[in-house]
Parts: sequence; structure tokens; C-alpha cells
Amino acid sequence: MEASVRQIADLVDAELIGSPDIIITGISGIKEAKEGDITFLANSKYAYLLNTTKASAIITSKDIIDNTNKTLLKTNDPSVAFTKVVGLLAPSVTNHPKGIHPSSVISSKAKLGNNVSIGACAVIDDDVCIGDGTIIYGGCYIGHETKIGKNCLLYPNVSVRERIDIGNRVIIHSGSVIGSDGFGFSMVRGIQQKIPQIGIVQIEDDVEIGANVAIDRARFDKTVIGKGTKIDNLVQIAHNVVTGENCIIVAQTGISGSSVLGDNVVLAGQVGIIGHVKIGEKTIIAARSGVTKSILPGTKVWGFPAKPLDIAKKINACVQRLPDLYKKIKELEEKVKHLEKKE
Amino acid sequence: MEASVRQIADLVDAELIGSPDIIITGISGIKEAKEGDITFLANSKYAYLLNTTKASAIITSKDIIDNTNKTLLKTNDPSVAFTKVVGLLAPSVTNHPKGIHPSSVISSKAKLGNNVSIGACAVIDDDVCIGDGTIIYGGCYIGHETKIGKNCLLYPNVSVRERIDIGNRVIIHSGSVIGSDGFGFSMVRGIQQKIPQIGIVQIEDDVEIGANVAIDRARFDKTVIGKGTKIDNLVQIAHNVVTGENCIIVAQTGISGSSVLGDNVVLAGQVGIIGHVKIGEKTIIAARSGVTKSILPGTKVWGFPAKPLDIAKKINACVQRLPDLYKKIKELEEKVKHLEKKE
Amino acid sequence: MEASVRQIADLVDAELIGSPDIIITGISGIKEAKEGDITFLANSKYAYLLNTTKASAIITSKDIIDNTNKTLLKTNDPSVAFTKVVGLLAPSVTNHPKGIHPSSVISSKAKLGNNVSIGACAVIDDDVCIGDGTIIYGGCYIGHETKIGKNCLLYPNVSVRERIDIGNRVIIHSGSVIGSDGFGFSMVRGIQQKIPQIGIVQIEDDVEIGANVAIDRARFDKTVIGKGTKIDNLVQIAHNVVTGENCIIVAQTGISGSSVLGDNVVLAGQVGIIGHVKIGEKTIIAARSGVTKSILPGTKVWGFPAKPLDIAKKINACVQRLPDLYKKIKELEEKVKHLEKKE
Repeated sequence: MEASVRQIADLVDAELIGSPDIIITGISGIKEAKEGDITFLANSKYAYLLNTTKASAIITSKDIIDNTNKTLLKTNDPSVAFTKVVGLLAPSVTNHPKGIHPSSVISSKAKLGNNVSIGACAVIDDDVCIGDGTIIYGGCYIGHETKIGKNCLLYPNVSVRERIDIGNRVIIHSGSVIGSDGFGFSMVRGIQQKIPQIGIVQIEDDVEIGANVAIDRARFDKTVIGKGTKIDNLVQIAHNVVTGENCIIVAQTGISGSSVLGDNVVLAGQVGIIGHVKIGEKTIIAARSGVTKSILPGTKVWGFPAKPLDIAKKINACVQRLPDLYKKIKELEEKVKHLEKKE
Repeated sequence: MEASVRQIADLVDAELIGSPDIIITGISGIKEAKEGDITFLANSKYAYLLNTTKASAIITSKDIIDNTNKTLLKTNDPSVAFTKVVGLLAPSVTNHPKGIHPSSVISSKAKLGNNVSIGACAVIDDDVCIGDGTIIYGGCYIGHETKIGKNCLLYPNVSVRERIDIGNRVIIHSGSVIGSDGFGFSMVRGIQQKIPQIGIVQIEDDVEIGANVAIDRARFDKTVIGKGTKIDNLVQIAHNVVTGENCIIVAQTGISGSSVLGDNVVLAGQVGIIGHVKIGEKTIIAARSGVTKSILPGTKVWGFPAKPLDIAKKINACVQRLPDLYKKIKELEEKVKHLEKKE
Repeated sequence: MEASVRQIADLVDAELIGSPDIIITGISGIKEAKEGDITFLANSKYAYLLNTTKASAIITSKDIIDNTNKTLLKTNDPSVAFTKVVGLLAPSVTNHPKGIHPSSVISSKAKLGNNVSIGACAVIDDDVCIGDGTIIYGGCYIGHETKIGKNCLLYPNVSVRERIDIGNRVIIHSGSVIGSDGFGFSMVRGIQQKIPQIGIVQIEDDVEIGANVAIDRARFDKTVIGKGTKIDNLVQIAHNVVTGENCIIVAQTGISGSSVLGDNVVLAGQVGIIGHVKIGEKTIIAARSGVTKSILPGTKVWGFPAKPLDIAKKINACVQRLPDLYKKIKELEEKVKHLEKKE
């Protein structure tokens, strides 16, 4: 596919600065772009790349300072604009499985909606219910009585255990496990005795779950991933965790049992959250923080134990200056010793 | 299933306070419970919930202060009691595969005991030996010459490599990998040359392994997971690690090569342990600690580098108060300067 | 297999101290070895074990101080020597799949080279191209248009998405996911809207990838794992990351989007790297470091935020001594108060 800069500017409702007739034939990153490519600049921090990129046009935000002679498409949200351009120039790059593959193993008691696709060697157990338009890739396993809504997309080798409840338009990437037993044991006469985990996992509409994620089923009741929440790769969600809507949970984060996230919470990468705490809505937890207490809504926190960001930064600055402080204190001691002698 | 409070109290050997004739029809968490449900309170910290729960009966520990008019079943171990009640009221919620699925691929050289179940599209390689009553879900792969004992349970999409030795009553959750090559390379003339990993993994009786865990085979000899040890999701066990019996290893922890854990060691979440160290029995390592040295038995440690808990707490308290310390030192400096002028 | 000590010394070009005629029948770790075994000592730190091992011969480095009467084979690189000995005494312990298993599902549009092996229930999608001698175990999924070079080895249940480019002699361990969508969302009117991830992953020659690793495809362009780089288990590589050649990335490390590693970079276990930074060649990042800025070539760093190793160690030493510092400052305050009174 190709399009003129004018067509693209119209599509994304952008202010066009430069030549409208250039033909765009490809999409690329700002550094890697070659002639004929369109690229984008979401972060004004990298504005200096405008002068070196070989792209024929660049989508930018409206507030960019354009001391460049490049063709710019200024828009309110370059990321969204870019997505539209991708849809125009590279409309279908992935061929999902179509129809029911003869090598898949589907229980006669499973109920499949219209236009459901099941890939090779996928296994669908008894009484599974799958909504219209859902695509399940090869190698997936769906346990008995699990419900999957409409237009979901499960990539290869996803494991969904029994009695799980998945909403509509949910995407689950390869290798993820939904509904494994929560980690619960009770030491009885020297033996770690297993506590049955008989609850479920409820994944609400529009959730996306990355690769090799583990989401445990509840001890009883349910583990809940709220509507629109997005989970990155290798994240651990323990039993009975409840996340709000539209949360962002970045890679390698772990949330311990029964903790509750409000709506729009952001957990950056490699965060750890202790069990049984409540993270207020719109809280942002910086990367590698360890959260040991409940957090009020709208707070930004950092560190371990996690503290409000300004306090954490102050403490961290103090830590970095410690070698200087030790010197200063040595000097002080000598001055005091000197004063004491003079006494 | 349903049961009277009296029946339940007898089952779990509890002291019954309240009405013995109430009929219990369900099990729930203390917050989510509705009339007819039984719930439990394991941690007296949440005793205030006794006043608000809608549960018809609550299992508690003996030492609870019962300023409530709710029906209580006081017992020595509420968790164990709860497990028994689950067994009574919700006896079989998971239908494991039964028999050998025709789509499974089982080598003619494999030896299967009595009542073994192999799910759809599972692959059992040459000379595998599987004990009586073991259940292997669909999508699992069992490599050649691996031995799996009696009454084990392997959930979907588990990968067990060749020559692994798994005991009895072992549970492995989906996505876990047992016996992948240890991470060993030697830089030879600018190239990272692979060091063969020809050892095995030995998983002893009654071990449980969570989802998406990786346990590497030994370089030679064996990596060992001791009897009764429980491993949570996304844990990394490197080559030649040896764990003792009844250890608890919480999610996202990593143990580097050749380190040895004594019996009854507890590693909380996101812990890291360096290679070639020895962690004494009954040691407890707090969440997110980084262990850089061997640890004596019975120690509680925290932090990075991990220290005995009381020292680590003291250091942490000092760190948190650093901004105040810097102010105090500034004042001291001024006082000393003032004194020096007066001299 | 068995061999005399003389034969082994010749094979590895070692200086032989002791008896050349001893027959070696096995290989073992220095602690576990029994009579007839050969073992090795790579690290002179453990030289004291020379006196207690029951091994019949020990491969050591040339600089070892041999106050022992054991039979030693002194060599320039004990690890490489050991690998050769493994090849001699234990030549083929893993029987990889041979040929195309009838239960595998291979698109008629896929192109397979000579001597390709595809295991049971593996799925090879349209237009996949697999080079000579490559082995793909059972349960793997290879998406459409993916190219895999010659003599690669993919262990069970690996998921490779569409349009991925894998070089020659690449090893991928079980459960790993190559080419899952990068984690990209844009908040539009309260909804996290997905940003299409239409790029690819390029895995260059001689790369090895551990178990349950996740490597995301680029937003556009490509995520690159450079030639000869070795990745341990449970590592997260985000979209558009580019690693140099011969890097070592230890378990549970995470690299955020668009960060670039030079050649020969070493990331120890559980490291985290922020997005959009550049790590210079030959940099070594110590375990559990959190990297928040670009790093110049050849630097050793540690800590969070990561600093040059000598500075990080100094800061850490200061932190550990804080309780003493607080005492010292209290004393200083009292002395100054005393001096002020005297004034």
C-alpha cells in the first residue's frame, strides 16, 4: 500500500507543513527510516532527530518546535495517528488461524459461537463456551466449563484452566497461564499441606495479557483483572488479587495474594506488591519499587519500602551523597576535638 | 452439598459458639460471603470483619476475642479446618483427564502404570516410565527416559526434558519447564562456547511447582528439589541447586547455580540468591532480598546485601531518616563555626 | 566410555601431574565425585577441595598451587577442557526427534531443508522456511513466514510468532516466546488503546535463549538479538531492544523498550534496564542493578540507580555503617552542647 502525505494528513486530522504530494510507501522508526518512509516523533526529547532522519514525512505533536525543513504532520496525539497510518499502509500483517483445524481436539460438549477459529493441536475441554469471532491458536488448552467471550485472541500455547471467565475482546499472548492454583499451604505436623484453591479467575472485557504471565485462581471466590487492564510479559498475579479498570502492569511485576488495585493504576517494571494491601486509583508506582503498605489514590511512589516520590527522591539523593557526608563528619569531629583541647 | 454447623464443627473438631442447626450451603471469603456461607478468619488482624460479614458461620482460631454474636467455630488451625470443609462442601471441582486420549503420542517404549491418564496432544517419548494414578494433561511433553512416580499431576503445557527423575504425588503447573540446560558458557577466543549440561533434575516426593517455573538440569550430577518443597510461579532454579525438604519458594525468586538450601527454608517473593552459597535450615529470607553470602541456620534476613533482620531494619530506619540527619549536621557545622569564631 | 588419564591429558593438551594409567569411567562435581571419576576445579577459591575429593583425577588451571598428591591435569582453560572430556566420556545423552512426526501439522506452503526434524504435535504455519539440519521438538508453534536457519534446536513448547527471522545454530529452550506483541498502549479518552506492533524479531546466528523467556516483536522495524548472545531463563526483552554480539544476559533480567546493548555486555541476574538507553560494549552490570541512564563502554556498574562499581561499593559501605554514624553524631552534638555551655 502507498498513500500521499495529503491523504495521510487528512486521515489523522493533522496540520500539514511541507509537501502534500510526496508518496509514502513504508513505515519506520525515526532512526532507521529511509526515503519514502513515514515516521513519528512522540517525545519532544528526541526532536534533534528531526534533522538527521531520512524519513520523507514525520508525524509529531502540535507543540513541537519545527526548526527543520522536513515535511511534518502535526497532530494532537502522534501515537494514535501513527496507529491509523499503520492501518492504512500495513493493514493485515498477521494471518490468524481460520476455521476449526482438524487436528484440534474439541469436546462434543463444548459450545462454539459463529466464526470461531481453533488452531492445530489446540484442546478444548468439556462444557467450554466460546463467543463469536474468537480465535484460539494452536497448542492452547482451554479447561472445562471455561467461558471465553467474543472476538478474543489467544496466541499459541496459552493454558487456561477450568471454570475461568474471560470477557470480550481479550488478548492473551503465548505461554501465559490463567487459573493455576494459588500458592497456599499450611504447615501441619512438619508437612506443608496444600490448601485447595477452588475459586476462579475473571478476566474482564478488553484486557490484554502478555507472554508467559501467570494469573492464579482464587483460593475461593475470584481473582479479577478489571476491564481494559493491560498486563506485560512475565507478570505474576497471585490468588484473590483484584485489579481495577485500565491499569497498566509492566513486565516482571508481581502482586501478592488478595491485594487490590484501584482503576488506572500504573505499575512500572519489576515492581513487587505485598499481600492484602490496597493501591488507590491513579497511583503510579515507579520501576523496581517494593510496596509494603496500602497507598492512597493519586500518589506517585518509588523505592523499597515504597514512599511518595518526592520523599523517595530526597532520601535517594542523601544516600548518593553519603561518602561526602562521612568526610564532612570526620572534619567536624576534628574541629570539635580541637575546640575541646583549647578549652 | 450442604451441611449443618454442628456437622462441620464435628468434622473439624471445633468449639462451637452459636447456633448448631444453621444449614451451610456455600463457602466464601469473609468480605464476599452471603447468608448460608461459611467463611474463615485465619488472621486476628482482620477480626473487625467479624462484625460486618454476612456469612452464617465463621471458622476462627481459638484465641480470637469474640465480641460478636456471629456463629463461630473455634479451632486450633483455621486453615486446615477450612480445607476439610472445602472437601465436604465442594468435593470435586476439577475434572482431570481420564484414560489415554487417542490424540496423545506415546512411544511404544514408554511404560505406563495402572490408571495413568494422558491428555490430548500430550507427547511421551521413548523409555519414559510413569507410575500408577499419574495424570498428565494435554500439551505436556515428557522427554526420553524420564521417570514420573505415582499419583502425580502435570497440568497443560508442562515441558519435562529427558532423563528427569520425578517422585510421587508431585504437582507441576502449566508452562513450567523441568530440565532445560543450565546456563553455562566459557569465553574462548571471543566466542561464548557452550558447556554441555549433561546432568539431570531430581524432584522428590510431594513437591509442588507453580506456573512458568524454570528448573535447569545440572551441568553434571543433579539439580535437586527436596521432598515436600513448594515452589510458586515464575521461579528460576539454576543448575546444580539443591533445596532441602519442605522449603517454601515464593514467586519470581531466583536461585543461582550450585547454591544449597537446608530444610524448611522460606524464600519470600522476588528474592535473589547468588551462586555457590549455603542457606542454613529454617532460614527465612524476606521479600526482595538479595543474598550474597552463606547464611547460618535459623536466621531471618532482609535487604540487599541481605543482613540479619534486626540489623537490616535498623539500617533501613537510618536511611529513611537521612534527610533529617543532613539538616542536623548542617546545624552542627554552624554551631562549630560559631564556636571557632568565638575562640 | 572410558579413557586413561594419559588419553585425556593428550586430548585437552594438559600438563599431567600424577599417574597416567588410571582409567577414568565417569564425570562428576568435585564434591560428589567417586573413585574412577574425573572432575575439575575452575576457581582457585575452591582449591581446598582438592584434598577431600574422591575423584581419581582433577582438571585445574595452570596457576593452581598443588600441595596435593592427587592426579592433576593442568590446562589453560579447565572449562573448555572439561567440555572436551564430556564429549569423550558422555558423547550423546540426548536423543532429539528424528524426521517428521506424522502428528505434526506442517503447512503445504512451508519449505523444509534437508534433514529437518519436526516433533509430535508441532505446528508449522504457511510459508515458514526451515534450514538444513534444524530440529523442532514436539509442541512448538512456528508462525507464518518465519525463517529458521540451519542446525537450530527448538525444545518442546516454544512459540515463535509470524515473520520472525532466526539465524543458524540458534538454540531456544522450552516455553520461550519469540515475537509476542510489544507492550504499547496510548490512553485515548480514558481507554488504553493498543498500538499495533508490526515489526519483527531478528535472532542472529549462535544465539541461545533459555526457558520461559519473552522477546517482543518491534513496534515497527525489529528487535535484535546479536550474534552469539546467550540469554538465560525468564528474561524479558521488550520491543525494539537491540543487543550486540556475544552478550550474556542472566536469569530474570528485563530490558525495556528500545534500549541498545553494545557487544560483549554482561547483565547479571535480576537486572532491570530502563527504556531508550545505550549500554556501551563490554559493560558489566552486577546482579539486581537497576539501570536508569546510558552507560559508557567498559564500565562496571552496580546498584539502583546503577553507578560505577567503586562508587556503588563506597555508598553501600556507608549505608551499612549508618547506625554507627548516627551514634557518632549524637556524641558530637553533646560535645558541641557542652562546648556552648562553657562559652
